[in-house]
Amino acid sequence: MSRERAGRFLVEGAQAVSEAIRYGRVHEIFATQAALDRNAALLDGVPVTLVDDRAADGLSDTVTPQGLIAVCDLVDVPLTEAVRGARLVAVLAGIAEPGNAGTVLRAADAAGADAVVFAGDTVDPHNPKAVRASTGSLFHLPVARERDPATVLDALAGLTLLAADGHGEVDLHASPEVLAGPTAWIFGGEAHGVPEVLLARADHRVRVPLYGRAESLNLATAAAVCLYASAHALRSPTVHEGTR
Amino acid sequence: MSRERAGRFLVEGAQAVSEAIRYGRVHEIFATQAALDRNAALLDGVPVTLVDDRAADGLSDTVTPQGLIAVCDLVDVPLTEAVRGARLVAVLAGIAEPGNAGTVLRAADAAGADAVVFAGDTVDPHNPKAVRASTGSLFHLPVARERDPATVLDALAGLTLLAADGHGEVDLHASPEVLAGPTAWIFGGEAHGVPEVLLARADHRVRVPLYGRAESLNLATAAAVCLYASAHALRSPTVHEGTR
Repeated sequence: MSRERAGRFLVEGAQAVSEAIRYGRVHEIFATQAALDRNAALLDGVPVTLVDDRAADGLSDTVTPQGLIAVCDLVDVPLTEAVRGARLVAVLAGIAEPGNAGTVLRAADAAGADAVVFAGDTVDPHNPKAVRASTGSLFHLPVARERDPATVLDALAGLTLLAADGHGEVDLHASPEVLAGPTAWIFGGEAHGVPEVLLARADHRVRVPLYGRAESLNLATAAAVCLYASAHALRSPTVHEGTR
Repeated sequence: MSRERAGRFLVEGAQAVSEAIRYGRVHEIFATQAALDRNAALLDGVPVTLVDDRAADGLSDTVTPQGLIAVCDLVDVPLTEAVRGARLVAVLAGIAEPGNAGTVLRAADAAGADAVVFAGDTVDPHNPKAVRASTGSLFHLPVARERDPATVLDALAGLTLLAADGHGEVDLHASPEVLAGPTAWIFGGEAHGVPEVLLARADHRVRVPLYGRAESLNLATAAAVCLYASAHALRSPTVHEGTR
């Protein structure tokens, strides 16, 4: 609750703080003297409040605090703004585990997604573990939060909706044509997959083919394979010509 | 050390124990009465030693023990046997984090790899966290362990060696011809990537293209994208014809 009230969140460690500074999200920085010395170049010209180890540890969410914490403005933007003109969107629908959510956000960034939507019961993108797993990607592309599935679906009108589904009728590799246009991928939670209300409205339910004996893929790895298939298809002249 | 001496390791939980039973690796099973009742179908006809909660918790590596533990025979096989006739091999070279190692093993299984090699300083495949992350894949395909890089390289002679490397000169998506034949992918550790001794001997250093602003991909997601690119290429008639 305090996170919501303040409209701010904490970012830890040199890599993430560096990204927060670069993208202009930092409100205030706390550092120990040791962290200040270690990160002199990064913090050059940036106002820093010196704190002792005890205070730094108190602000930290990790078991090995680095003594460097930035208080940042929340990054999320209104949903319609986030997805305006987007050609590739990742929708996280009910992803409870913050590490998974952050890892999917990072993969979406790497695959060149234009926006990421934290939908339904998905963990807050500002959750400390999600922030860490995103390794800065939280600051790189528009992120929106929206609990209501109908609002999410309205905002994605005009995009091909692909639900990642282990039992989907479309094989990711066998149907390049479904990946050729502007796309929103919907990734569901670890336990129950894509919620039925979204599954029912998807244009296609797409499965990552399982060539071996594994029953499924880890959520974040499946999402990365799907998003990279789209990234590749959206840049592939062959596929584009085939769909004209 | 006791794990090595006994030649056995522990597997926990219904999903993993089920796979261990199916693949004939179980030496002995311990279960609480509650776990026995919950898994009656799974354990039908299987000799089980009843234990109380305290004993089951003592055997468990998790914070939420399920009361079901199988003592299993080690799964690893000699390296040359594991890779004989293989068309797709994943080599884990210095992966320290067991969750990552297990997730890559799972992705390799899903992508239809013929073998996985735990090379160099990579965590033991029987590590409890690695076993959990593999969700049974540990039992699905040949797994070998080999510390010596030269021995690993000898065993992989005849396969195209691809080192996954964020700074590699080959773009995974731009060069389908490098994926068209029997391949061993080498994935390095979280901090230092593929060890120099293996990098130097790779036929190609291959990068997953970064289309957005992310500086890198998570190890397991990068491995999944690479392995699926190979899985797809090895099954794609177009690519095969192009390389004749």
